Amino acid sequence: MIKIAIDAMGGDNAPKEIVKGVELARNEIDNVEFQLFGDSTQINSLLSNKKRIKVIQSDEVIKMEDEPVRAVKDKKNSSLVMAARAVKDGSADAFYSCGNTGAILVAGLLIIGRIKGIDRPGLITTLPVINNDTGFTLIDCGANADAKVVNVYQYALLGKYYAEKVLKINNPRIGLINNGTESDKGNKIHQKMYQALSQNDDINFIGNIESRGLLDGITDVAVTDGFTGNAVLKSIEGTALSMINMLKDGIINGGFGSKMGALLLKDTLKKIAHKMDYTKYGGAVLLGLRAPVVKSHGSSKAKTVRNTVVQIEQIITSNFVGSVKNYFSNHTDEMDDIKKGEQ
Amino acid sequence: MIKIAIDAMGGDNAPKEIVKGVELARNEIDNVEFQLFGDSTQINSLLSNKKRIKVIQSDEVIKMEDEPVRAVKDKKNSSLVMAARAVKDGSADAFYSCGNTGAILVAGLLIIGRIKGIDRPGLITTLPVINNDTGFTLIDCGANADAKVVNVYQYALLGKYYAEKVLKINNPRIGLINNGTESDKGNKIHQKMYQALSQNDDINFIGNIESRGLLDGITDVAVTDGFTGNAVLKSIEGTALSMINMLKDGIINGGFGSKMGALLLKDTLKKIAHKMDYTKYGGAVLLGLRAPVVKSHGSSKAKTVRNTVVQIEQIITSNFVGSVKNYFSNHTDEMDDIKKGEQ
Repeated sequence: MIKIAIDAMGGDNAPKEIVKGVELARNEIDNVEFQLFGDSTQINSLLSNKKRIKVIQSDEVIKMEDEPVRAVKDKKNSSLVMAARAVKDGSADAFYSCGNTGAILVAGLLIIGRIKGIDRPGLITTLPVINNDTGFTLIDCGANADAKVVNVYQYALLGKYYAEKVLKINNPRIGLINNGTESDKGNKIHQKMYQALSQNDDINFIGNIESRGLLDGITDVAVTDGFTGNAVLKSIEGTALSMINMLKDGIINGGFGSKMGALLLKDTLKKIAHKMDYTKYGGAVLLGLRAPVVKSHGSSKAKTVRNTVVQIEQIITSNFVGSVKNYFSNHTDEMDDIKKGEQ
Repeated sequence: MIKIAIDAMGGDNAPKEIVKGVELARNEIDNVEFQLFGDSTQINSLLSNKKRIKVIQSDEVIKMEDEPVRAVKDKKNSSLVMAARAVKDGSADAFYSCGNTGAILVAGLLIIGRIKGIDRPGLITTLPVINNDTGFTLIDCGANADAKVVNVYQYALLGKYYAEKVLKINNPRIGLINNGTESDKGNKIHQKMYQALSQNDDINFIGNIESRGLLDGITDVAVTDGFTGNAVLKSIEGTALSMINMLKDGIINGGFGSKMGALLLKDTLKKIAHKMDYTKYGGAVLLGLRAPVVKSHGSSKAKTVRNTVVQIEQIITSNFVGSVKNYFSNHTDEMDDIKKGEQ
């Protein structure tokens, strides 16, 4: 039985949508047990039944605006910290929260801890691609804004195992986001990243890629430093949302003909909305830790929570963490060489 | 009379669409004289009349795949280099090409040269915003991938003058692209950029901004290093294009009802296409040089060429370069202080 420790108080719609999503997942998946940390009175009143669900009382909540390091340090009885601690103690296999992103990352790093050999964990998100269903996976989406060559090198390996094990992509293509596709493109550090990645025979490195082609499926995994990755992720999200809003506004303000047109186009528009809905891939995962640490957006509803539970179940079942541990324990010299080359 | 030196051989549709676009602009704008550099036989055969158009023979062409620095050095009789040289010699006021981007930047920097006090020029592009017509202006879009604090500081000033003088935005808002809006966000260099920008009373600095909100009009000018700017620009372009293609595919493959729907929605879809069409703002401008150096996409058609000529006329008429020269000649100490602070 897989055990997932869930911060039931994190996010704008907690605990209601968290509990609802957990029940949806529980009714579909047999091999998962849920540990819900939070206000037990509230949670119990929301549950329709407690089959494979344990409710654990926590007296504090880390708020969205709390300073992450201080919050994790000070609020030891918060649902977020208690859920992370359950993983650390071995009573759960994964930690999931829709709460304060910074606090989730800090709790993952400080409480659950890194896999030996990994210098900095990386945050990944899987986003849609027009012509396939496996999307593309972006790492790092913002855990590490000051990335060194060795960090990005490790992200490529983490991305490879995630795409292979969890998304079931055979020999996934790994591309480095750069300002052109030629091998000498980019600033000094990105040129060094290219060199390091092209020397690793364990990954299917396809070279430099431009962010323009990501939604067209030019790669399975896009690796980048956390600063660029964050800007790319938010640019894609913002543009997609703005275009959908423009279409909605155009339909609403376009008179009868336009409303009729939208009605006739309903299936097409629904398909596009479904295609662009990246919550179907679950949440963002902090990779490189001893157990999966997963966050989904603060505004998540039950469906996203359900999808994220499915994702976590796949991460655990695939033994992603075991594969990564195995690789890094056998490649310590390789990492040392890259660090030396950087100096 | 404003004189624009144009590389008539640059781009995928040269010289035909360049000549066509120049004639469109010439028929609308009275105060511009055009100097077309290229194969004079071809160009002359395409021109319907030569009013305010001079054709200057050039025997070479810089190709899209040529290595920029070598091409500018070796192909002195190319249309691109000759057009840039016309500006350097004072026989033209601006240089425009749809050709090899790298070669345009190199020719601008090496032949036309920087304004005194500006360390590195920055490439700007104006992109659409849903709820206004002035869009937002992104600087640097990729001229300088290894940006220092002083470069981004200067981009903010260049962006301010461009938005104020050319786009006629009163007291334009300047935001720094970062991975969060709080003042301490970002990696070390972005934290220093924030500090420097917040100390300049000559700009309306609104602080850190996230790329998610750019199309929603959160700022008039978005400043960033050229690596991030390039990734943001290409992410926005790629996402917008992918979504439009998805809609088109959905309509084409959606049967009769969907085609009827599209017909009824035609005006709405046209409005969105017009809104997202950023060629209406002209091309990308390399700012910080002694004269405007403007490039538009290699695939540009006549309408984009026409729009870019309008943009160049506005840059010259507004005396953008004069205002920038004036600011930087009076603020040399300020730039020195920022460079000292960076060490």
